[in-house]
Amino acid sequence: MKEDNASYEAYLFDLDGTIYRGADPIPEAVDLVNRLRAKGIPYVFVTNNSTAPPRSVAQKLRKMGMSCREDQVLTTSMAAASYIQSRGQTDPSAYIIGEAGLKEAIQTAGIVEKEKSPDYVVMGMDREVTYSKLAAACTAVQNGAFFISTNADRAMPSEQGFVPGNGSLTSVVSLASGVDPVFIGKPECTMVDQALQMLGVRKEELLLVGDNYDTDITAGIRAGIATLHVGTGVTPAHEISSKPVLPTHAVPTLSDWHL
Amino acid sequence: MKEDNASYEAYLFDLDGTIYRGADPIPEAVDLVNRLRAKGIPYVFVTNNSTAPPRSVAQKLRKMGMSCREDQVLTTSMAAASYIQSRGQTDPSAYIIGEAGLKEAIQTAGIVEKEKSPDYVVMGMDREVTYSKLAAACTAVQNGAFFISTNADRAMPSEQGFVPGNGSLTSVVSLASGVDPVFIGKPECTMVDQALQMLGVRKEELLLVGDNYDTDITAGIRAGIATLHVGTGVTPAHEISSKPVLPTHAVPTLSDWHL
Repeated sequence: MKEDNASYEAYLFDLDGTIYRGADPIPEAVDLVNRLRAKGIPYVFVTNNSTAPPRSVAQKLRKMGMSCREDQVLTTSMAAASYIQSRGQTDPSAYIIGEAGLKEAIQTAGIVEKEKSPDYVVMGMDREVTYSKLAAACTAVQNGAFFISTNADRAMPSEQGFVPGNGSLTSVVSLASGVDPVFIGKPECTMVDQALQMLGVRKEELLLVGDNYDTDITAGIRAGIATLHVGTGVTPAHEISSKPVLPTHAVPTLSDWHL
Repeated sequence: MKEDNASYEAYLFDLDGTIYRGADPIPEAVDLVNRLRAKGIPYVFVTNNSTAPPRSVAQKLRKMGMSCREDQVLTTSMAAASYIQSRGQTDPSAYIIGEAGLKEAIQTAGIVEKEKSPDYVVMGMDREVTYSKLAAACTAVQNGAFFISTNADRAMPSEQGFVPGNGSLTSVVSLASGVDPVFIGKPECTMVDQALQMLGVRKEELLLVGDNYDTDITAGIRAGIATLHVGTGVTPAHEISSKPVLPTHAVPTLSDWHL
């Protein structure tokens, strides 16, 4: 790992486990974001959560005491919509399983929602998923729709314990259709590549900050950018040194990161 | 493979692809069942379909021109309920995802349906499955409920193409909880073992007849009974000779099977 006083032109932050834990901000993270802002260093937040639109995410972060505009948020839903746009098809249509965040992102990108013979099937977390939605996705994929899933997270925490995440819901369609989707979220590097565009910086200028080795840090490694692991979330600090590819930097909390 | 004039004391028939195709009876199969009845040779029908109660299955077969009592039908739902009973627990409770066939089988076996802290989670095909049902199953399994799934079939045919089967729905709970279920249906040998009890015969006296190598024939092989592959369904006759373990017998249609 490199020494921890390296300087970067721009920052990319994971959210849960890095900036906050559920509803609770992590004070050291809030402080780092405010230090970046004071120095005029740009930053973007990236999240595998597909359910919330960017304005809700920005609002939540502002309430926690950070400056955050809507255009500083990149969700997997927005990234999925951009991915479809980047494929250059005229008037693409999509069958959507997902919540408001995904529906809005698809609509904003000018992609038409359609159940019969869509060009794409896009699956995101949907707490109102039903058998008939899953069956419609499955038959559309078999009929040739391009299959996209916002993220592969198998489970997510709830008050009752872990409940199914979008990766588990997606498995219904991939197992039944025999077709694997293109996953958009971390650990894929799609969102990092899009964030580089948003920030207008080169790979060597960007630092990705995250708590989860298997999603955040791996996405940064795959994208070829520098990574900073922080021990405030999923992957404990002591596990990091045994990983096959190390993050560029690692700190116990973000108060240990100096600009 | 043995010569095809071997005689058996009892028969175990798969249904779809062996006795009928969807709503259409296979005449050679109907004829064989009637020949067995005329000779007084007992038979039982076994199906991985968990949604229909045995009286509906028996009724469907009678309408197709075969003699079939309710006690000659063994569904995965009945087998799942018997499996729970065989574990010898006093007053077991279960959280059920499934349709009428599973709910009735569980109730008939005296197992109490319960969502909070059940002893078992039993999943069968449910065309009205929702996220909240899947989440309840997932948290119950994490809290220690014994996890049972009626069958692992990933897809099933519909007019629109293949739609998700119970194996795909089950994957949501197994991936999210990290716990694999005990599967009851074929290719497991649970139902063959239960059919031996129902028929009161020894393993060497029973012949399993089925069209699907990977479910029917494999269940018979695992249970250590003789098997007859019929080429009227899923696995084509020409694929059988290349299987690592051959069925005991194989015929193109059941008119080629002599008693």
